[in-house]
Amino acid sequence: MRIGVLTGGGDCPGLNAVIRAVTKSLLRQAGAQVLGIEDGFAGLMAPSPRVRELHWDAVSGILMQGGTILGTSNKANPLATPEATAQTLANAQRLGLDALVVIGGDGSMAIAHGLSRHGLPIVGVPKTIDNDIVGCERSFGFDTAVATVTEALERIQTTGQSHSRVMIVETMGRYAGWIALEAGIAGAADVILLPEIDYDIEAVARVCRERERRERYTVICVGEGAKPIGGALTVERRLADSPDPIRLGGVAHALREQLQPLLHSEVRATVLGHVQRGGSPTPFDRVLATQFGNQAAQLVMAGRHDRMVTLQQGQLGCIALADVAHQHRSVPLDHPLLQTARQIGVALGEP
Amino acid sequence: MRIGVLTGGGDCPGLNAVIRAVTKSLLRQAGAQVLGIEDGFAGLMAPSPRVRELHWDAVSGILMQGGTILGTSNKANPLATPEATAQTLANAQRLGLDALVVIGGDGSMAIAHGLSRHGLPIVGVPKTIDNDIVGCERSFGFDTAVATVTEALERIQTTGQSHSRVMIVETMGRYAGWIALEAGIAGAADVILLPEIDYDIEAVARVCRERERRERYTVICVGEGAKPIGGALTVERRLADSPDPIRLGGVAHALREQLQPLLHSEVRATVLGHVQRGGSPTPFDRVLATQFGNQAAQLVMAGRHDRMVTLQQGQLGCIALADVAHQHRSVPLDHPLLQTARQIGVALGEP
Amino acid sequence: MRIGVLTGGGDCPGLNAVIRAVTKSLLRQAGAQVLGIEDGFAGLMAPSPRVRELHWDAVSGILMQGGTILGTSNKANPLATPEATAQTLANAQRLGLDALVVIGGDGSMAIAHGLSRHGLPIVGVPKTIDNDIVGCERSFGFDTAVATVTEALERIQTTGQSHSRVMIVETMGRYAGWIALEAGIAGAADVILLPEIDYDIEAVARVCRERERRERYTVICVGEGAKPIGGALTVERRLADSPDPIRLGGVAHALREQLQPLLHSEVRATVLGHVQRGGSPTPFDRVLATQFGNQAAQLVMAGRHDRMVTLQQGQLGCIALADVAHQHRSVPLDHPLLQTARQIGVALGEP
Amino acid sequence: MRIGVLTGGGDCPGLNAVIRAVTKSLLRQAGAQVLGIEDGFAGLMAPSPRVRELHWDAVSGILMQGGTILGTSNKANPLATPEATAQTLANAQRLGLDALVVIGGDGSMAIAHGLSRHGLPIVGVPKTIDNDIVGCERSFGFDTAVATVTEALERIQTTGQSHSRVMIVETMGRYAGWIALEAGIAGAADVILLPEIDYDIEAVARVCRERERRERYTVICVGEGAKPIGGALTVERRLADSPDPIRLGGVAHALREQLQPLLHSEVRATVLGHVQRGGSPTPFDRVLATQFGNQAAQLVMAGRHDRMVTLQQGQLGCIALADVAHQHRSVPLDHPLLQTARQIGVALGEP
Repeated sequence: MRIGVLTGGGDCPGLNAVIRAVTKSLLRQAGAQVLGIEDGFAGLMAPSPRVRELHWDAVSGILMQGGTILGTSNKANPLATPEATAQTLANAQRLGLDALVVIGGDGSMAIAHGLSRHGLPIVGVPKTIDNDIVGCERSFGFDTAVATVTEALERIQTTGQSHSRVMIVETMGRYAGWIALEAGIAGAADVILLPEIDYDIEAVARVCRERERRERYTVICVGEGAKPIGGALTVERRLADSPDPIRLGGVAHALREQLQPLLHSEVRATVLGHVQRGGSPTPFDRVLATQFGNQAAQLVMAGRHDRMVTLQQGQLGCIALADVAHQHRSVPLDHPLLQTARQIGVALGEP
Repeated sequence: MRIGVLTGGGDCPGLNAVIRAVTKSLLRQAGAQVLGIEDGFAGLMAPSPRVRELHWDAVSGILMQGGTILGTSNKANPLATPEATAQTLANAQRLGLDALVVIGGDGSMAIAHGLSRHGLPIVGVPKTIDNDIVGCERSFGFDTAVATVTEALERIQTTGQSHSRVMIVETMGRYAGWIALEAGIAGAADVILLPEIDYDIEAVARVCRERERRERYTVICVGEGAKPIGGALTVERRLADSPDPIRLGGVAHALREQLQPLLHSEVRATVLGHVQRGGSPTPFDRVLATQFGNQAAQLVMAGRHDRMVTLQQGQLGCIALADVAHQHRSVPLDHPLLQTARQIGVALGEP
Repeated sequence: MRIGVLTGGGDCPGLNAVIRAVTKSLLRQAGAQVLGIEDGFAGLMAPSPRVRELHWDAVSGILMQGGTILGTSNKANPLATPEATAQTLANAQRLGLDALVVIGGDGSMAIAHGLSRHGLPIVGVPKTIDNDIVGCERSFGFDTAVATVTEALERIQTTGQSHSRVMIVETMGRYAGWIALEAGIAGAADVILLPEIDYDIEAVARVCRERERRERYTVICVGEGAKPIGGALTVERRLADSPDPIRLGGVAHALREQLQPLLHSEVRATVLGHVQRGGSPTPFDRVLATQFGNQAAQLVMAGRHDRMVTLQQGQLGCIALADVAHQHRSVPLDHPLLQTARQIGVALGEP
Repeated sequence: MRIGVLTGGGDCPGLNAVIRAVTKSLLRQAGAQVLGIEDGFAGLMAPSPRVRELHWDAVSGILMQGGTILGTSNKANPLATPEATAQTLANAQRLGLDALVVIGGDGSMAIAHGLSRHGLPIVGVPKTIDNDIVGCERSFGFDTAVATVTEALERIQTTGQSHSRVMIVETMGRYAGWIALEAGIAGAADVILLPEIDYDIEAVARVCRERERRERYTVICVGEGAKPIGGALTVERRLADSPDPIRLGGVAHALREQLQPLLHSEVRATVLGHVQRGGSPTPFDRVLATQFGNQAAQLVMAGRHDRMVTLQQGQLGCIALADVAHQHRSVPLDHPLLQTARQIGVALGEP
């Protein structure tokens, strides 16, 4: 039995923990040969595919490491052209792969599903710091990203307090507000703005002014995809035109421009950027990623292909790749955490 | 509406986050008056009860703080004598309490249930770093304790590696192995010993020797309640005789004595002790404790007393106090995480 | 004996540790009354000055806290007009201040010196995360800022590695490169660009290209005041026009624009911003700030005014405020750490 | 030019940073061949010495790692017998070593000096978390150990506060009190007990009782070598009889036995143990270790042997190995930090 493993898409803490668990389980339980494919799908599509065998020792000591020992790529797409697809399938055959484990985001899952339909047996493992993959209520990397943002909010709190300022912190999360929501609560933000709830700038200003009156600073945690009621061209342009989610002219700076004229306090904006993607995974994410990796190995050994590992209601399971590809999981408007935020007095920018 | 809040039993990261959320929700939603009772049940039993009003500002800025701003007590028991019970109930009446929120462990929940039966409306919030309260699949404080132990394991790893030693680390957890299990996996322990699985010393030694042969050090993570097959008088005496769970002669040192004669490598033991109880809660625990506190406030406002907040299958809910009191939640022998550990090659001391 | 204490200028980890040590030493040794002045010089200039007495308990538990319990202001200047000066001096007299301890940067020291010449006895304590105050070889807050930047660099490393990118991280430091230099070394940056050494863009690109050839990613740590040979209008405009050092169009983004056309790899930029100013001080900074605070108290009690606490060659001492005001301490071009960086192969952007 | 490098004695954060800097500087500046010797002097004494060549890539990415990639040994002594010495010198010759860099503590420096006198050119690099090597005012690893202990004290603070307890924390440091002193100050200990100042148990109890009266908990930070006036057999036996500094019956537990009968509050003791030795070095230690390693390379290239790298008054330099061997650097009784501690109200156990 010979199994390939690759990591696709953006960096995410816990990738190595998945690689380690997949490998160790396949080696111990099935005596399989595990091939690590380098640089994501790019390594599998290349005229001579880039692979290395993963022995037991090759995955020892990587549990705590951020990044991926296999490398990744954002853009490689084996489905882009018929030639690319053919090359990829031919490579898989030449390598003698009985199955492939793809650790990636919704884009990678779409590719995985496409390759599955061409006959390559694939098991997917959901990977997103944004926590926005369908079928997975908590993905590894998310807890680490939340921890990084929370720590930044704590640091920002002291500056806000010392100077009686309004401090805006922009987080990652794309079209979903999970990171901003959880980190905002954990970091004691006074206002949390999410892509799911278009914000009323006057409502935001009202909170700041009321706090000014009580001689208090204000911390605003805003997800990168958030926008004011009426829409924000700047932000949409940014997400469409650029491969780089950390851009000038993001929502934090736009919000600052909107807010400053309405307030006495100085308003400052910080865009956290790539630090949210990297670093050693939290213990929570290490355990979760280890479980995901082991679960993927079990699915491979059981021959349950064209599926992605899931976590639902606290239970590991799996879901058809077709149901996952190219979809997002936003924060539902009736999510208990939104309700909790409102009830303890966190403003969500609602009119 | 006047509501009392108290924290009972041992220190636990997240207590202040619960106090803050209970208070903010009751103030905002019900315009209630919230009384913080000091030093746990001791403050409520005292001839003149020790209370202070909790205004909005009194609970601002405490989210991140470890410990409890209200203080706690380990031993005070209003049910110990009829006089104590009468005094406690009279105090509650004198203070005009419409309900009481008790944040505590299984012992506190037993007291809460007893007082409920005497007519004092009580809502409980489960509190345990050990994650061992019935009805609650993940309690606040646990993630922080796991993070503390994991960090210690990481530090110990480097020493084990540099010196080719066998390093034993003893964690808290009482009769349940949750901390040792999750931290052991997150900290890449080679062997994890739990109270739920009596260990075979020869099986443990075999793992160490096999690693010696491959020139590798070994890290053993052992829960304080673990014991060898055949039983361990030392450990049982320790848990029964002493108010202090961090004692000389604990399982780490006993295990070291057993193991050293069987190995070439030096064996070293570390007992982590009270550091596992304290410190600022992780972001995960802050969010969870905030949800628990808010949920307790909702139960109070809905008049749903004699109940404890729960988390089951990822959903907040509640359970009758009678079903919780004086019980423990051990790691079930068919728990998926045990299976995961075995499948990736972690030894559990099984023969 | 009645002594005032104020904190001026930007936030800096360790301010509370200084306030605590000044207060505790004056209370214990001199039985002095200590008055905390709120919001920096603004609180002392106000028609009715904003003060609160600092008792022992008021400064207990603040050692670990970031920010300043007294608040600060960036812009208040008692020397701005003769009226402001007169008001300030009258307030000091009305409050019965025998001396004033000013914890601040070079701007605050200039004000302190000016007020001293008007007869108000002042002792200064140097405060700068940038480590750029004359007479002080290591100021509190710097170690914390370096630790924050280093952690960010570590997180960025994993993303750079996973994607084979060139990652640029912009640090604070104003006209001095201390933060970029120490954090760059501690965070294993491949290239470190400082305000003291104008960089040759071609030399920077050469390092990146050579690393591309060896299939390695590159991390560039750049101080906010750095500029290319020939000068950078963007950067200078930014520092001159804006009160906010975290601006669009900073050096990181400018460098990215320069570098991207010269390379195959993607180039990404992150501006760390205000997170560098806040948060709990490192143990090193707590000890240093405690020593500075105590030293200030000793100078006050010895009647040695118009002086600033210093650290030189590892020894605490003092220096005349006149020698400090309005000056900066850049990284000397013969500093051993620059030499160390070069010798271990870190590029400094030199042609 | 062929240079050997080895690490001797106990684990210490920053060892890898030294190895990296020594290697990179020798490779870049001298085109030297660098041989890493495994397991300390044990690897050099072995009939067939254990070595591996250190190329540039072999030391890339190790800056942040705790431990030593070369391994170490505590007991190997090439001077133990004439045969061992002869074997060691013969091995060095066989390997063609032009010089040897020894990174180790006072014991290793004594061996290094002895081998130097037999004609093997050696440069020493001081290594001790205890900060007690003569000629070196701040050694790498110390800042990390202080940070680890400080974090533990912070965690312990919250438990002490919640329960109104007396909490004792025992630190490493052997015969010197540096770790206990700096961490005690940074962690806001109320009492700090050092090997250099025999403590008066009644004075310690008095502090605790006075704090009890003010309803405050007490944190005591005690160095492992501390002892009461009159001497402590337990402790001395421990240090003499055992290779393991983390022992039952250490000073923390002895102090607890002494203190409990004198107080109302519960007294709890925690022995931090091996966690103080391990883990990733702080940024401060990474910079310091990098400088030490580079300095060692410069001494090797300059042919300045039989010397150890030093840091004195903030300057890198060197000292004859003969002046270092088998000595300790205690905290001088007139050290400014002791004075600072007393002046801000920290008790040192003095009568």
